[in-house]
Amino acid sequence: MKMIDLNCDMGEGFGVYSLGDDAAMLDIVTSANIACGFHAGDPLVMAQTLALAKARGVGCGAHPSFMDLWGFGRRPIHGQSPADIEKQLIYQIGALQALAHAQGLRLGHVKTHGSLGNMANEDIDLARAVARAIKVVDPGLIFVVMPGLPTERAGEEAGLKVAREIYADRAYAANGNLASRKLPGAVLHDAEAAAARILDILDSGAVASLEGPRIPVRADTICVHGDTADAVAMARAVRTRLTAAGYVLQPMANWL
Amino acid sequence: MKMIDLNCDMGEGFGVYSLGDDAAMLDIVTSANIACGFHAGDPLVMAQTLALAKARGVGCGAHPSFMDLWGFGRRPIHGQSPADIEKQLIYQIGALQALAHAQGLRLGHVKTHGSLGNMANEDIDLARAVARAIKVVDPGLIFVVMPGLPTERAGEEAGLKVAREIYADRAYAANGNLASRKLPGAVLHDAEAAAARILDILDSGAVASLEGPRIPVRADTICVHGDTADAVAMARAVRTRLTAAGYVLQPMANWL
Amino acid sequence: MKMIDLNCDMGEGFGVYSLGDDAAMLDIVTSANIACGFHAGDPLVMAQTLALAKARGVGCGAHPSFMDLWGFGRRPIHGQSPADIEKQLIYQIGALQALAHAQGLRLGHVKTHGSLGNMANEDIDLARAVARAIKVVDPGLIFVVMPGLPTERAGEEAGLKVAREIYADRAYAANGNLASRKLPGAVLHDAEAAAARILDILDSGAVASLEGPRIPVRADTICVHGDTADAVAMARAVRTRLTAAGYVLQPMANWL
Amino acid sequence: MKMIDLNCDMGEGFGVYSLGDDAAMLDIVTSANIACGFHAGDPLVMAQTLALAKARGVGCGAHPSFMDLWGFGRRPIHGQSPADIEKQLIYQIGALQALAHAQGLRLGHVKTHGSLGNMANEDIDLARAVARAIKVVDPGLIFVVMPGLPTERAGEEAGLKVAREIYADRAYAANGNLASRKLPGAVLHDAEAAAARILDILDSGAVASLEGPRIPVRADTICVHGDTADAVAMARAVRTRLTAAGYVLQPMANWL
Repeated sequence: MKMIDLNCDMGEGFGVYSLGDDAAMLDIVTSANIACGFHAGDPLVMAQTLALAKARGVGCGAHPSFMDLWGFGRRPIHGQSPADIEKQLIYQIGALQALAHAQGLRLGHVKTHGSLGNMANEDIDLARAVARAIKVVDPGLIFVVMPGLPTERAGEEAGLKVAREIYADRAYAANGNLASRKLPGAVLHDAEAAAARILDILDSGAVASLEGPRIPVRADTICVHGDTADAVAMARAVRTRLTAAGYVLQPMANWL
Repeated sequence: MKMIDLNCDMGEGFGVYSLGDDAAMLDIVTSANIACGFHAGDPLVMAQTLALAKARGVGCGAHPSFMDLWGFGRRPIHGQSPADIEKQLIYQIGALQALAHAQGLRLGHVKTHGSLGNMANEDIDLARAVARAIKVVDPGLIFVVMPGLPTERAGEEAGLKVAREIYADRAYAANGNLASRKLPGAVLHDAEAAAARILDILDSGAVASLEGPRIPVRADTICVHGDTADAVAMARAVRTRLTAAGYVLQPMANWL
Repeated sequence: MKMIDLNCDMGEGFGVYSLGDDAAMLDIVTSANIACGFHAGDPLVMAQTLALAKARGVGCGAHPSFMDLWGFGRRPIHGQSPADIEKQLIYQIGALQALAHAQGLRLGHVKTHGSLGNMANEDIDLARAVARAIKVVDPGLIFVVMPGLPTERAGEEAGLKVAREIYADRAYAANGNLASRKLPGAVLHDAEAAAARILDILDSGAVASLEGPRIPVRADTICVHGDTADAVAMARAVRTRLTAAGYVLQPMANWL
Repeated sequence: MKMIDLNCDMGEGFGVYSLGDDAAMLDIVTSANIACGFHAGDPLVMAQTLALAKARGVGCGAHPSFMDLWGFGRRPIHGQSPADIEKQLIYQIGALQALAHAQGLRLGHVKTHGSLGNMANEDIDLARAVARAIKVVDPGLIFVVMPGLPTERAGEEAGLKVAREIYADRAYAANGNLASRKLPGAVLHDAEAAAARILDILDSGAVASLEGPRIPVRADTICVHGDTADAVAMARAVRTRLTAAGYVLQPMANWL
């Protein structure tokens, strides 16, 4: 059986604010990355998102971030040691874990958000701090990593289960990281083309970089977005295409 | 053996800010109520406070609050349902629990902070929400309650272990709650007199209210403060007096 | 000429979050109440909202609040003196004033938000603090008040110009304050009925309270909302009806 | 007459938190850089600091920062355009200006805080954004700049009055910027030696860089700190030495 997981960031509201169409995405994806209150999310939003995911059998994971509500965790914030960031992650994962436990749920995975994720994919010391934080909260948690980058290495070193991830709507640089959004072609908008590309990556075990050369990638989970109507359509196209190709979609924690 | 616990709020710094003399108090008290990031505290302060308490064998508990950094959790904030507050508490206790676990520690108790605590002592529905939050995170956690008030009742209904608490530096109203700080005599400043009062309360099982009539109280833990030099002196006087009277001071979670 | 103003809360986004359809409302209303960063809004949102209003000739005013982003300024927060709240208001109005000045705009009015507004309409001391804050920033600013309530009195005492306001979508209590949202009939949903009611209020100088008796009201400005599609439709209906009845709609600061 | 100004960061408390000995420093310095609520400060602290400075005839200026309370504005936060930062500065300066105006005070200067200051001294586009923000709020405000660096250039280009500043307790790099705190010798601790160095800089118009070569500097104001007892002692030593050497100490806005 060819297993695959579809993950999406969710629970990114705060107080009166909401963001993205979580209800629509929960009918499409198999894993939810739930914001933990630092870039988005609050205890009420977190509890509600867990309940919605539970009702649909979608796997729940933590989506911790830098403490940066105003910048939505997207701003690169320097001047923090890996050890300090580790504590921020333990705090966030622990908070969501307790809310999940209150609903009889167990978290399955952890995926870092925004600038924290970008920085961890370029800095092995930071990636190791993430892995330590995950392991100390629950060594059974899956670390969602970028294949070939420091997060994958840190996860493997720590003995954590890792889920290698590819993005449905983003082009890759030759070094295996996401190409900067500022480059032409860095963000994919055509749902069907993106879905076809995902199939090609899975079939071939490689993705064409924006610069040209193909880079080897292995994927356990595919990241889709839900913050626009187009994004939801793309997620749906990816799911349809995967199913048609014989993939079985299940939360990563069920089979990894 | 006459067992007693001395508890103090700690870890109430935030970023560059610090508050109170935690190091001095950790040599005096047996239980630390650690702020969880909502009225004070941040992941770094929390981890540091846990480490300091661990090094001295002081028991660690969560000190959750309303989300109100600016008001230090002291402002009465209305318009929140008990169910919403319950989620805020689960979030905070879970976050501290994970940071404690990372240091090989288990939390022993939960004590609500500031206005949240005051409101829970006057509202059985809110007190029950606190009890539910504690129980769902860890049913072994002790709920620090006010004897004769809704928190005690809620803790007992929930089947939680409760620690009945008296304040070393506060006078009581006839209804068993703390007398308003605005009333003359509501706050005790004389260290020796306060220490003597505590012994009298423990011996007699009752405390004279500000209005006059004595109210029955039973105490497992005594709350002392550490935010001023006078407060530290009072805490020391209470400890000395208790020891001289034959009390054995141990973290509440060791013997309750 | 029968002059009237239509006002609407705007600029209530924060960071990545947005709220309400400001663009649609700016084509309907004549005055914008702009959030100042305490319950919503940030310097970027504020500057953008000012620019949008300026482009359409909509009058700009400050919409200060309690410092409560999470609760959107809707939670009653006690434990703050009027003098303390006065400083919070000066801060907010001054911040918006500077951003307006940077675009060659002058603020025309101030309207308090949410719980702060509700509390000022029941507490003359708080209402006077609001009036003092407005006057010290710019004595030419109009104070938007509720007719017959403490805000009106405080504005008049302070010698400020006041704009008496009625709500298009809210029923009134017999004491002249808004009826609690929890009461049946407290919120009007039918756009045409609400628009007709506004005309009746303006013609008769009175509004039927939810309890029955009519209360005298005088209106310079009508508050409409823009946070839902229905709200935008109601605002449009009110404007259409007013225009048909011969009212001239202009920013309050142009004619009051 | 040889005029000189002594400036110090002040009003850096928040809610219950305080930082530094403002009362002591206000007896020593002639200009106060007042935090505006983004890295520290709140409307109450700001108003109180203005009142304390006013009572002693100390000049008041704005000390705006990145929005980063947790990091105290010291963390380099990237991903913000100069135009966006400009709006954040207008907001902060405008807020303090209104609070100053409420006490009959006029702000005299603006000095950027922490990472924002460091970044503006290395980035002419950012320095120009700071100058624009200052100018649009009040073209009479003095821009506190580092001699020879982009802030000085941006201030002069904008036609603003500038106050060239040297630090009493910091060593300089050969490029004229402050030497990194991580380098040995970067922070001066000996009060008398630091005071003597300041006199030497003023006399010679140059400062020895940590690398050796002397760099020309011109100084209108000297920055001292007040966050430790040692810092207060150094500030006092600097003032004593300056007075003994015949300098007249006055708020920069009185004579620049």
